[in-house]
Amino acid sequence: MPAPIDFHFDFSSPYGYLGAELIEAIASRHGRTVNWRPVLLGVIFKETGGAPLTEVPMKGAYSLHDFARSARFHGVTFRMPSRFPIPAQAPSRVVLSLRERDPALAGRVAQALYRAYFVDDQDIADPDVAAAVAGRAGADQAAARAAVDDPAVKDALKREVAQAIAAGVFGSPFVIVDGECFWGVDRFPQVERWLATGGF
Amino acid sequence: MPAPIDFHFDFSSPYGYLGAELIEAIASRHGRTVNWRPVLLGVIFKETGGAPLTEVPMKGAYSLHDFARSARFHGVTFRMPSRFPIPAQAPSRVVLSLRERDPALAGRVAQALYRAYFVDDQDIADPDVAAAVAGRAGADQAAARAAVDDPAVKDALKREVAQAIAAGVFGSPFVIVDGECFWGVDRFPQVERWLATGGF
Repeated sequence: MPAPIDFHFDFSSPYGYLGAELIEAIASRHGRTVNWRPVLLGVIFKETGGAPLTEVPMKGAYSLHDFARSARFHGVTFRMPSRFPIPAQAPSRVVLSLRERDPALAGRVAQALYRAYFVDDQDIADPDVAAAVAGRAGADQAAARAAVDDPAVKDALKREVAQAIAAGVFGSPFVIVDGECFWGVDRFPQVERWLATGGF
Repeated sequence: MPAPIDFHFDFSSPYGYLGAELIEAIASRHGRTVNWRPVLLGVIFKETGGAPLTEVPMKGAYSLHDFARSARFHGVTFRMPSRFPIPAQAPSRVVLSLRERDPALAGRVAQALYRAYFVDDQDIADPDVAAAVAGRAGADQAAARAAVDDPAVKDALKREVAQAIAAGVFGSPFVIVDGECFWGVDRFPQVERWLATGGF
């Protein structure tokens, strides 16, 4: 059984959302599953000196244009949320709380949360909203809501982010296949070739 | 006659080099020519607060790995130069001095300069080296060498960079097709679709 693909993502990341819409099909074509790994870019940017793309001079305006164009290119529905960026702790904890017991459900809930934010403009930073979305995607809504405030889940998210940084993750989406790192949805063609050939 | 594709590049940019190896075939497939537009990222980064990728924490190590992997992915020969980055004024002026009279020659010389740097590890920042490479690529070597110190060509490069910044160029490669901006060699699939469809 080959190892799952590690898919790191921040719920505030438009390219992370596009990646989330594409990664399961890629994994499936190559007999892999996806390990959905939420990260917090705000924490990571403290290490790298990075900043949200939309706040960088010149890149900001381009990025807003490119989010929408890249979504059209990939055939993914996308609408820039009215609140952006958001702190991603609540939805990230919901996903983490599901992952160990049911990794496939964690993935479906992550996709549902992303769509709630980038299609339906719901404020998934709100724990009640995040839990309701998780409930509609098949999770236990009350358990999801409780997970947001659960100290053990909070600690698990901190560990998850620290592990990601230790593994070299500095952006979203960030895919690791058998130890090989790929940053950005625009590296997915390389991810596919890597999966198909075992490296190139 | 459709407008040429504006291809902005910095001679120190590995992704610019990959783009330079790919852009003519893309243009040709869609009945376009390429306008080779040298820029100086050092000047642009003063506007954007940007920095060379290789100097950014975490991104630096990834980038060095990704340059080589992306080159293999695209079937392009690549070797990280021993001197990096370089000030790109000399080769940029050589290309600019040729462009108005013979844009196709300017493109061939730009590609030859890029290969001298990223395949043969020649220091194209040296005006004599840049002129010799241009000479072997079909330009007048003495005229190329003189262009590096020509005040009119120096001014032309300053104008070129200022125009690029005014057009929104903040990285390399940076392609503009009929007013639509595409940053990065990883947007070339979108450039191709844009050329094929007139926009999407």
